[in-house]
Amino acid sequence: MAVELRNYTLVEKEFYMEEAIKEAYRAQAKGEVPIGAVVVYQGKIVGRGHNLRETTQNAITHAEMMAIQEACQSLGSWRLEECDLFVTLEPCVMCSGAIVLSRVEQVFYGAVDPKGGATESLYQLLSDERLNHQVAIETGILEEECGQLLKDFFKKLRDKKKAKKLAERAKLNKEEIVKKD
Amino acid sequence: MAVELRNYTLVEKEFYMEEAIKEAYRAQAKGEVPIGAVVVYQGKIVGRGHNLRETTQNAITHAEMMAIQEACQSLGSWRLEECDLFVTLEPCVMCSGAIVLSRVEQVFYGAVDPKGGATESLYQLLSDERLNHQVAIETGILEEECGQLLKDFFKKLRDKKKAKKLAERAKLNKEEIVKKD
Repeated sequence: MAVELRNYTLVEKEFYMEEAIKEAYRAQAKGEVPIGAVVVYQGKIVGRGHNLRETTQNAITHAEMMAIQEACQSLGSWRLEECDLFVTLEPCVMCSGAIVLSRVEQVFYGAVDPKGGATESLYQLLSDERLNHQVAIETGILEEECGQLLKDFFKKLRDKKKAKKLAERAKLNKEEIVKKD
Repeated sequence: MAVELRNYTLVEKEFYMEEAIKEAYRAQAKGEVPIGAVVVYQGKIVGRGHNLRETTQNAITHAEMMAIQEACQSLGSWRLEECDLFVTLEPCVMCSGAIVLSRVEQVFYGAVDPKGGATESLYQLLSDERLNHQVAIETGILEEECGQLLKDFFKKLRDKKKAKKLAERAKLNKEEIVKKD
């Protein structure tokens, strides 16, 4: 069954993705992997969320899960019919499952996740006709911005680890010099 | 990579599954589809949960998700290493994703779910080596009891709908008789 997309203009799509990107920045400010999401219903954002795994020490607090839960609360229903989800990164297995279960109609995402993405990369969970709901997908919305955010975050993380290692090595060298003296 | 099972005796496995079944009864008492789960760490139950979708009107409140979240809270970590999950029904896509993300080591479940199960039926998500964690599975623990609970629930639901339809038809017939009079 082909799922027909509700029409959004390019400006609208980019507007909602910018809101998801704002959420990703909020994650980053907390030292979290910068991923953000919003749920849109009748032109309004009814759920927002960003990755909070480290802050909450709760494995399921991905951006999409937070946004879906807030949307359920806003609309007073577990059925997010006529709702669309905008997310900066291709959803994982768990989030794809939650998207299908909550009956979200369309998913728009920015960057592809070849290692863990489950809507197109590793699996095509949103179009599996054996499940009781299918979800339309559009990808590549502000892709570069969404992807760059993640690349910068992981580069900084690597640089930080490298600097730590160098500092430790320098400390060891110093201790050896002191011993020799 | 084959994942080795931590040893539980049959008595232990049935004990923990009975605890998951108790959770399923709690769901049923609230009019929810009776599914329950517990997370076990070093012989102790550190998370319990039952399906709460209708009560919370939140799409992600499956038994496994509730149990995983409680376990994360109990242990103060999103990593549920050395933790095992006992659940009355084969996990769905979302819950399988959450099990992998939270690094649960073993999943024991009762009844198979041919329509929505994602650990063996529709997908084999827990053994996918492309994901960054694999989970061992054992199935068939108190299978009949776990399955019967669900069968009875859905039979009652069908009987209730049938009775409602019959009552409506009887009401319509009565109104027609009154009109004819």
